[in-house]
Amino acid sequence: MSRFALTIEFDGRPFMGWQRQSHGPSVQQAIEEAVWRVTGEQVAVHAAGRTDAGVHALAMRAHVEIEKAIVPFRLMEALNAHLRPEPVAILACEAVEDDWHARFSCVGRSYEYRIVNRRAPLTWEAGLAWQVPQPLDADAMHAAARYLVGRHDFTTFRSAHCQAESPLRTLDRLDVARRGDRVLIHAAARSFLHHQVRSMVGCLALVGQGRWRPEQVHEVLAARDRSRLGLNAPPDGLYFTGAVYPING
Amino acid sequence: MSRFALTIEFDGRPFMGWQRQSHGPSVQQAIEEAVWRVTGEQVAVHAAGRTDAGVHALAMRAHVEIEKAIVPFRLMEALNAHLRPEPVAILACEAVEDDWHARFSCVGRSYEYRIVNRRAPLTWEAGLAWQVPQPLDADAMHAAARYLVGRHDFTTFRSAHCQAESPLRTLDRLDVARRGDRVLIHAAARSFLHHQVRSMVGCLALVGQGRWRPEQVHEVLAARDRSRLGLNAPPDGLYFTGAVYPING
Repeated sequence: MSRFALTIEFDGRPFMGWQRQSHGPSVQQAIEEAVWRVTGEQVAVHAAGRTDAGVHALAMRAHVEIEKAIVPFRLMEALNAHLRPEPVAILACEAVEDDWHARFSCVGRSYEYRIVNRRAPLTWEAGLAWQVPQPLDADAMHAAARYLVGRHDFTTFRSAHCQAESPLRTLDRLDVARRGDRVLIHAAARSFLHHQVRSMVGCLALVGQGRWRPEQVHEVLAARDRSRLGLNAPPDGLYFTGAVYPING
Repeated sequence: MSRFALTIEFDGRPFMGWQRQSHGPSVQQAIEEAVWRVTGEQVAVHAAGRTDAGVHALAMRAHVEIEKAIVPFRLMEALNAHLRPEPVAILACEAVEDDWHARFSCVGRSYEYRIVNRRAPLTWEAGLAWQVPQPLDADAMHAAARYLVGRHDFTTFRSAHCQAESPLRTLDRLDVARRGDRVLIHAAARSFLHHQVRSMVGCLALVGQGRWRPEQVHEVLAARDRSRLGLNAPPDGLYFTGAVYPING
C-alpha cells in the first residue's frame, strides 16, 4: 500500500463541487473513477479543501492510497489519460509517508478571486470570473480588507451550512489589487469557514462600488450576525490556489 | 448615416473564424445579426483582421454604418444584450468619421500566442492555449525570433491559401517570454500574411524543444519555401490583441 500526494487543477463549471454528491458530478468522483480504471481499486481521495459547485482549483492538494505497485509519474500520466474528457488534470504526483494527510496535515490554504470590472459581458471567461459592471475602487477595497485580516469571529462571513465547530479563524492575507480591468483578491489562512472567501469578497465589492464605507466591513464583522452580510460573491471567480504542509509533516 | 468603431472580444472556439461562411457560424455574422435586431438594418461589419477558425480576440477593431439615430453607448449596450449567449462582447464603441475604415485605416496589428508548457492536459484553458508537453527553452525561442524581426519575404511562413499580393512583410516585434509554466509570444506588424503568426510560433516551438537550432529559423526563412516550414501551431493559443490607427486617421 502506497500513499500518493496529488496536485490537481480543475474547471469547476461542470461539477457540483469537490465532494461526492448523489445528485450530480463531482471532482472527487471523477478522480476516484480514474483511479479505479487505472488500478481496479475502489479508493477515497481526500482533498485539502472541499470547494463548492462552480469553484475552480489551480493547485488543489489531495492524497490517495493504492495497493497496485506503480511509480508516481506513471500514476499521474495514467490518471490524466483516464480523466479525459473531464476538465480535471493531475499536475504533480509524489509518494508520501503513510501519515501525510491532505486535509489534516495542511497548515495553510490560499485562494484567488477574479473580478472582471467592465460593462461588457464575459466571453471566454464566462463562469471563470465575476463580472461587475459598476466601477470598483480597488484601493478602498484593499483598505476595507485590513479590518478582516487577523484573528476574528467570522460568524457574519460564514454560511448557515458551515460545519466548523468554531467561527474563529485567523486570516493571514486579504489583498486587493487592480490589473487593467481586473480586480484580483488573494486570501490566505490556515483554514476558512464555508463561504468565507465569497462572503468577504461580496462585502469588499460593495465597498468598491461606493455603496459601503470601508468601516462598514468592520461593523458587520463585529456584529457576528450572518444577516448583516452585504453580499455573497458568486463561485465563478473563486480559485483554490495552494495548500501548505510542514516540512517532514 | 453614422459610422461606429467597435472594440470586440470573442472566444473563437465555436466559430469558423471572423468572416461569414456558408458552412458554419462566424463572429461577423453574430455581430451583423445583433445589429439587425437592434436597428432592423442589414449591414456589413468590417474588421481590422480576419481571424481563422478557433482564433480568439481580446480587442478586435471593426466598424459599422448605421442609419438609425443612436448614441455609441446605447449601441454598445444593445449589441451586447442581443449578442447573448454568443461569446462575443463589444468592449467599446465610438463615433468615427465616414472615411475611418477598420481594415484600410489600420497601420498596426498585434497578436499574443499562449503556450502552456506542461505534461498535464488543459482544464479550463482547453481550446484557449496550446499545450506543449516537452520542456521549452524560451530563451532559445526568443533568440531564434530575432531572425524573423524586420522586413523579409515570409513565403515559408504563409498559408497556401494566402490572398496577399506580396509575401513581403515587416515584422516589428516577436518576443518570447516564460511566465511560470506559460510561454507567451507577442507579435506586431503593420499586417500579417495568412497563418504567419501560427507558422512562426510552430517553428519557434521546435527550437524551444531542441529539435531545431535557432539558426534553422533563418535558413527556412531564406529558403522562401512553404515545404520547409517545420510546424504550424494550432489556432487555440492565438489572440488578436490590438489594432493601431493614425491619430485623425
